[in-house]
Amino acid sequence: MAESFGQRLRQSWARSDSALCVGLDPVRERLPSHISQAPDALLHFCREVVDATADLVCAFKPNIAFFNAEGAEEDLERLIDHIHAAHPGIPVIVDAKRGDVGSTARMYARELFERYNTDAATVNPWQGWDSIAAFSEHKGRGVVVLCHTSNPTSAWLQEQPQHDPAYLKVAREMQSRDVDNLALVVGATFPEQLAEVRRAAPTLPFLVPGVGAQGGGADELRQVFASGVDENGQGIVVNASRSVIYAGTGKAYATAARQAAQDLRDQIRRARDRRQT
Amino acid sequence: MAESFGQRLRQSWARSDSALCVGLDPVRERLPSHISQAPDALLHFCREVVDATADLVCAFKPNIAFFNAEGAEEDLERLIDHIHAAHPGIPVIVDAKRGDVGSTARMYARELFERYNTDAATVNPWQGWDSIAAFSEHKGRGVVVLCHTSNPTSAWLQEQPQHDPAYLKVAREMQSRDVDNLALVVGATFPEQLAEVRRAAPTLPFLVPGVGAQGGGADELRQVFASGVDENGQGIVVNASRSVIYAGTGKAYATAARQAAQDLRDQIRRARDRRQT
Repeated sequence: MAESFGQRLRQSWARSDSALCVGLDPVRERLPSHISQAPDALLHFCREVVDATADLVCAFKPNIAFFNAEGAEEDLERLIDHIHAAHPGIPVIVDAKRGDVGSTARMYARELFERYNTDAATVNPWQGWDSIAAFSEHKGRGVVVLCHTSNPTSAWLQEQPQHDPAYLKVAREMQSRDVDNLALVVGATFPEQLAEVRRAAPTLPFLVPGVGAQGGGADELRQVFASGVDENGQGIVVNASRSVIYAGTGKAYATAARQAAQDLRDQIRRARDRRQT
Repeated sequence: MAESFGQRLRQSWARSDSALCVGLDPVRERLPSHISQAPDALLHFCREVVDATADLVCAFKPNIAFFNAEGAEEDLERLIDHIHAAHPGIPVIVDAKRGDVGSTARMYARELFERYNTDAATVNPWQGWDSIAAFSEHKGRGVVVLCHTSNPTSAWLQEQPQHDPAYLKVAREMQSRDVDNLALVVGATFPEQLAEVRRAAPTLPFLVPGVGAQGGGADELRQVFASGVDENGQGIVVNASRSVIYAGTGKAYATAARQAAQDLRDQIRRARDRRQT
């Protein structure tokens, strides 16, 4: 990998003209019954969804928790191999939210970047720069730092103190460190805070959860783009997981996922293009 | 498991008369050469260390990152099975520092408590109570929350704002929620903050890293016990990983680990018993 994660993401935005990232959160009990009992059901399901949506997305985000819970690490390895081989140029962001320091952080970085060969991973900043450094040192890989998450209790630590909240400290610190491999998780469910983060971090890409199954709709999307894009009108990766991958329940689940992804991509495009009006 | 994690920990303190927890961080390159190339080297090494030190400890803390990096999940499953079978009553705390919410957090809880069958796990509070709840709902299991970690940059978010720092918010919140299944990570390298945490959380157990390879010595241990014990003179689990498990490098590594654990247990006992003087 010659270029940086930032470069690969910008190329992917340009090629796909899409800010949609499909999150891959496979729960065996929710898979179509004709595949749910297969030993490699998680791989099979995700691979079909990936192949049905690859031309509609700027990134894929497999969530490692869903594979770890099943003991399906090999499925995740093979899924990422498949994305790289069949859809080269689409960055893979493993949602791992790992957070540790020193030799332990180096082990997690080795797990994510070498074993799983992901382009980027989500990382938790609670322990300070120590917990980012081991990931950031991997040349060409990306580190997506939890800045302001989309869940209801996120403000408890992230928005303290009011006059200089932790999420803005995180944004400023990552902006100041940027070597074109850092990005921020900023939830669509907190639009004012998202605008603040963009002011604090003018060039970092945002991975934006909280759209779709988590509740955000067209209004949230417009606000995300109105205040969140970078100076090139880019900088946004909108993640949707369950609303896409579980759009259908029967044998035609991949077709249903494609339709849901296409609708959402178009909705995101409209939000992007109308942000000025 | 009928009782709570808190009860099991108190029973283990009473039975062992030890506050030492041995952390299991196996790095293949650091294992004795006669076992380092075996497919189950991580399991083999850790099992020998466990069997050589079990009567000296109140808990074991395998670090999942070291198994994940090697693709050695099965070694970790078998190691924890072995601890439960061969040394019943010694709680296992998997150091995972997981932090996520909703369905993802439930997947991590399922991974840790069902797949690995650990008594407790370390969890990151950055996303708020949402990130603790899914773990805390598992009856009889323990959740060890990162309150003030031992690493150099921990203060960056954890000690903000000065007048009401986040680490004390975490301590108070966990104390208020306590259903005898919560505990706090509080680093030995920040003794004043540890005293503050004890005042804010009078009954929660503390898992104390930062002793041994990370630098803390006899002075730090005395301070930990002087200000950190609960009203029963208990409440402290002192973790040491590398200084114990890598005490020897040759075939007699388990004997060397036992000697290091015994020396450290005795040093901890002296710190505990002299805390008043």
